[in-house]
Amino acid sequence: MVHPEDVQKALTDQTILVSVMHANNEVGTIQPIEEIGRVVKEKSRAVFHVDGVQTIAQVPIDLAQLSTIDFLSFSSHKFYGPKGAGGLYVRKGTRLVSFMHGGEHERGKRAGTVNVAGAVGTAKALALAVSEREEVSKREVELRDRLISGIRHHVPMSILTGHPKLRLPGIASFCFEYIEGESLIMNLDVEGIAASTGSTCSTGTLEPSHVLLAMEIPLELALGSCRFSLGRGNISEDVEKVLEVLPAIISRLRKVSPVYEHATQ
Amino acid sequence: MVHPEDVQKALTDQTILVSVMHANNEVGTIQPIEEIGRVVKEKSRAVFHVDGVQTIAQVPIDLAQLSTIDFLSFSSHKFYGPKGAGGLYVRKGTRLVSFMHGGEHERGKRAGTVNVAGAVGTAKALALAVSEREEVSKREVELRDRLISGIRHHVPMSILTGHPKLRLPGIASFCFEYIEGESLIMNLDVEGIAASTGSTCSTGTLEPSHVLLAMEIPLELALGSCRFSLGRGNISEDVEKVLEVLPAIISRLRKVSPVYEHATQ
Repeated sequence: MVHPEDVQKALTDQTILVSVMHANNEVGTIQPIEEIGRVVKEKSRAVFHVDGVQTIAQVPIDLAQLSTIDFLSFSSHKFYGPKGAGGLYVRKGTRLVSFMHGGEHERGKRAGTVNVAGAVGTAKALALAVSEREEVSKREVELRDRLISGIRHHVPMSILTGHPKLRLPGIASFCFEYIEGESLIMNLDVEGIAASTGSTCSTGTLEPSHVLLAMEIPLELALGSCRFSLGRGNISEDVEKVLEVLPAIISRLRKVSPVYEHATQ
Repeated sequence: MVHPEDVQKALTDQTILVSVMHANNEVGTIQPIEEIGRVVKEKSRAVFHVDGVQTIAQVPIDLAQLSTIDFLSFSSHKFYGPKGAGGLYVRKGTRLVSFMHGGEHERGKRAGTVNVAGAVGTAKALALAVSEREEVSKREVELRDRLISGIRHHVPMSILTGHPKLRLPGIASFCFEYIEGESLIMNLDVEGIAASTGSTCSTGTLEPSHVLLAMEIPLELALGSCRFSLGRGNISEDVEKVLEVLPAIISRLRKVSPVYEHATQ
């Protein structure tokens, strides 16, 4: 979690922008943006940006009430809208420098022929997501908690990462001891289960997640991370399927791991 | 036209980039990029960028032969592909700084979840456009020349802008004396004809086109600009329709113009 006191300590006279994810993309922890915003505005003249990409369709955000937020950004594909489109909320009066130059499109803030279909699709998808948010979140939380509890009970040496309660409705993220994340993902894939290790933004690299390392999770454990993301289409059978196959996969992978063998001898 | 000698005169020791449109978006003139590229490479160490947005699907460009081109950019919607997508050709070995930071997407050059549908749509639309280019261009050139010749014969005080021959297949651009471009566009719109005045990139402003002013067209005349763009869907009846209604509209607008009245008294 990003602690407001840490933000306060990091502020200097030179700070012009504080940018915080509303929820972390790897472990799902929801950050205390209200408290952070208060610190930013009380202790500095910085502008406050919240990356709402993980939360805008999942967690209520009242921008009228959260008046410390100057910018809120989001991408459409996170709530089943079109890829390549998204939005930026800019509080009235906040100065915003142009992102792309060359034409007067979008009030001079972003040159280029407007992707009208993308914009309309984004607006519609967001309206749908928000209207169904409560119902979908409730279902996702139930599935997520069943998944977390099942994994904790049936997979030994599994560690839930991220905040146990203040987390995105659909994210169950773990580190498994003596497991190599990429191998686990591939074995799950064979069973028709799509999961991730590390961040999707750096897929293909074998670097450990900087998020997990920042959380002081040891390197070997960070390499054994796995994230299950639930969406509006998931049903309880999906969760049961994971709980059915995951323990056996983990057990098999550990059996062929020289590190595990050595550690348990 | 951008004259290679003018480019040469503009080059200094400090020049790091020369960027030229392959064809002008307002008057359709095709620029001598081969000669310009030669000058750039012979007389400087600058990188050469060609904006191919108007031409990639309309004019053959052989990048193997045109080895002076380091970058070639294009947008998909210019050849009936999806808006919000496009491409940048980068010659092997040319250094390219990241455009967006934050993730390792697109080989670290542009952070952000990739718009896969946009990329696939762009590739497919470009392949289709290129495969039909010769046939479509030939038809457009015929229609364009019929339109240009018809306007020159039936609309007095009309001036073709841009190069008479070295121009995009589908662009017929004119300035009409004693005419206010916006009024003309609206009158054409009533007849179901979509045309433009100035640049679409600055629609809504009443500023005269900087392109026409740079061509030393007088201000009053530049304000009376009108561009007809032909596409693959246009047929000869469309051209005949323009030729049928345009002379009467022009004549009517001039009748109510105090400037015209004064000038012709």
